[in-house]
Amino acid sequence: MADRPSPGRIVRAPENFIDADLQQQINQHGLDDTRRGFLRKSFVAASAALAAGSSWAQAAVPADGDPAILNLPLHSRTLGQPVASRPYGQPSKFETQLQRRESPGLTRVSAASVSFAPLQGLFGMITPSGLHFERHHQGWHDIDPAGHRLMINGLVRNARVYTMDDLMRLPSVSRIHFIECGANTAMEWSNSAVPTVQYTHGMLSCSEFTGVPLSVLLDDCGFDRKNGKFVLAEGADGSGMTRTIAMDRALDDVIVAYGMNGEMLRPENGYPLRLVVPGIQGVSWVKWLRRIEVGDRPWNTKDETLHYVDLMPDGTHRQYTSIQECKSVITTPSGGQRMVGRGFYNISGLAWSGRGKVKRVDVSVDGGRNWRTARLETPVLTKALTRFNIDWTWDGNPALLQSRAIDDTGYVQPTGRELRAARGTRSIYHNNGIQTWQVATSGEVSNVQV
Amino acid sequence: MADRPSPGRIVRAPENFIDADLQQQINQHGLDDTRRGFLRKSFVAASAALAAGSSWAQAAVPADGDPAILNLPLHSRTLGQPVASRPYGQPSKFETQLQRRESPGLTRVSAASVSFAPLQGLFGMITPSGLHFERHHQGWHDIDPAGHRLMINGLVRNARVYTMDDLMRLPSVSRIHFIECGANTAMEWSNSAVPTVQYTHGMLSCSEFTGVPLSVLLDDCGFDRKNGKFVLAEGADGSGMTRTIAMDRALDDVIVAYGMNGEMLRPENGYPLRLVVPGIQGVSWVKWLRRIEVGDRPWNTKDETLHYVDLMPDGTHRQYTSIQECKSVITTPSGGQRMVGRGFYNISGLAWSGRGKVKRVDVSVDGGRNWRTARLETPVLTKALTRFNIDWTWDGNPALLQSRAIDDTGYVQPTGRELRAARGTRSIYHNNGIQTWQVATSGEVSNVQV
Repeated sequence: MADRPSPGRIVRAPENFIDADLQQQINQHGLDDTRRGFLRKSFVAASAALAAGSSWAQAAVPADGDPAILNLPLHSRTLGQPVASRPYGQPSKFETQLQRRESPGLTRVSAASVSFAPLQGLFGMITPSGLHFERHHQGWHDIDPAGHRLMINGLVRNARVYTMDDLMRLPSVSRIHFIECGANTAMEWSNSAVPTVQYTHGMLSCSEFTGVPLSVLLDDCGFDRKNGKFVLAEGADGSGMTRTIAMDRALDDVIVAYGMNGEMLRPENGYPLRLVVPGIQGVSWVKWLRRIEVGDRPWNTKDETLHYVDLMPDGTHRQYTSIQECKSVITTPSGGQRMVGRGFYNISGLAWSGRGKVKRVDVSVDGGRNWRTARLETPVLTKALTRFNIDWTWDGNPALLQSRAIDDTGYVQPTGRELRAARGTRSIYHNNGIQTWQVATSGEVSNVQV
Repeated sequence: MADRPSPGRIVRAPENFIDADLQQQINQHGLDDTRRGFLRKSFVAASAALAAGSSWAQAAVPADGDPAILNLPLHSRTLGQPVASRPYGQPSKFETQLQRRESPGLTRVSAASVSFAPLQGLFGMITPSGLHFERHHQGWHDIDPAGHRLMINGLVRNARVYTMDDLMRLPSVSRIHFIECGANTAMEWSNSAVPTVQYTHGMLSCSEFTGVPLSVLLDDCGFDRKNGKFVLAEGADGSGMTRTIAMDRALDDVIVAYGMNGEMLRPENGYPLRLVVPGIQGVSWVKWLRRIEVGDRPWNTKDETLHYVDLMPDGTHRQYTSIQECKSVITTPSGGQRMVGRGFYNISGLAWSGRGKVKRVDVSVDGGRNWRTARLETPVLTKALTRFNIDWTWDGNPALLQSRAIDDTGYVQPTGRELRAARGTRSIYHNNGIQTWQVATSGEVSNVQV
């Protein structure tokens, strides 16, 4: 994989699935090599030699070794690393190029910026926590959970302050949900050609979250059921991030979460406590959560008025448009990757909807003239990423790859043209248009707007 | 959390959920502190001070600072770390005690041993890849995927050798499954009191796996549908691990996997390729997979005859008993943890079945006399871990905590007594008996056999 460009995986394209060089080695091996006599009937050693592949020639030769063993790669004839040699495991050294990346110059300081998840190299629906995208407004901290507190106040009978240990005694739920920044795919409003899916769609991740339903805490504090129509969530970092959430939603599926993908939240994702607001843009998933206030009207905070509003063609702003509408993107092949030959490929991508489940994903290889329905990996969960896959035999001609998601409300992901007709081109947030990847005859894949 | 014993989380137990010290600080603050005038109506700063908790007194005091700001913890008034400061993220520095651990002396060398997953500190059903249990037979290697090959031979029309790139072009599936070592919970066959759930049940993990269905590869090679009744899977490490799998199963849900929890497999878990054999004991999930052979009878390899067989009371061995039967365990409260006061607790645990879905989990706090049905976190998936939770108000008296899982075949997890009556006490493998945790009046939780 050393020849793979970064970022992203590419795919090699032999005419069939047999490696020609190796096949030649098999043939030679069978014809003229006296070592053949040493091989067991079961082909164990022979297959090991095959498995050595390109490291065949690199194997060290012991002075008095069994000749049949000489062809084994080092990892097949030496003792490996012990268990627990890494009490907390890490990816392979061959995968270090797969990392989250900042887009240089996107913001003035990197403490108030974005790092994008490398979607082009990810599988399934779960995002590895180490590659979860980041959006900080004042940088991240590693907060000592022993000192962290959550206060619930405002229109409640009993304002309370919870320690982390208090929260972890309470009824717990675990649910898989996506999180997407409202500004994901922002550059596609203009005609800028962002090169890779990491930068076009990488403010997107999906994890299993564990925590206490917010409804349990609001009940515990005796919130005002008559006048308490909204809650305000507030973070403990320097940005003092504050977001309004309607009470109906707060009582529905919102979680005060401490767990992510089986372990405690990562510091970059709000350790030790963040809000999980399924289906809603990431800014409302307040990190380093320290306070929930119950009130009778929206707060109209800075990040609800100056930011995270949609500038419409008529000059007005849409406010509190927080639901991430149905959307999808092909992650492989995608921009920056290179297909090096015609033949069979697996087209793979992600689909999601802030309103529920993905019902169907269609894929086009001709810019939207013809569509085929992709396979959805199961389980398909509400407000979670859904992985789709579809077969494609590339004939070597130019192609335009697109995916179109439909959710269980019947909403169909719009084309970029449809989206701009309704919303103009001066928006930053909430771009859920169909993405197009152009495949050139050279196999190069690039971002185009059609 | 500094006072938490390792391994495992414990829970503090105030009489209610208000921290008494902090409540006193709130009261004082409200009564006699002139800084109150600086506080905004929205209580932003006040709540920040509360959030400071125990670090209140530690905050550095700027020479000419705003007095209201002085009470803020450092993380609320300083710039944090930039995005992508860790291109691949890590857990908090406060979570370093949560690690996989070897049981010293369990085997002669640590390269052929086990590290156990810290179930007592995990949430939900997904196991973080960094804490996935390990069972190596000759140590782990970080194999270069560019040189790795998979051969399929034996009773096939066209033996083939696949590169990793070949495999990643083929149709792909993603599925969540548990993996459990056949020797998990082995020490419970005797009356040894293994102290924690990490060591009693920690050879258990659950991940989302991505790869090519084995059926696709067998089809591609034109396997002999008449005589090809079994496949042999072979690993590339020094142990030459080989396991027989019946063809019906191989064609059903077995995956040749390269992905785990969204990224490439970890080296300790078989990078770049392993077999996923849902519902079957871990040894058959051959790591560093280099070969699949199609044959007409089981191979009876070393690890199918000397190991991974069940010694029955009559002196015979059961062979190829590979399905991991329905089982469950309470992970919190569990052995080694300490409950420090009566009151409300969330009992949480895991249930699974190698035959399908978990239908129900019952929990007893009196050693099996009375049972209540727990909540199952969704989705409940076939051959995957299922997280259960149930409320419990501890009255401070001794208690015996048990969980009992029932799968969708109707099979009920047996008591240890029932299991030993059928299987004797000389087994190593396949112990799926009900686990009992004893709670003492002191709050200490320990492993007992009843």
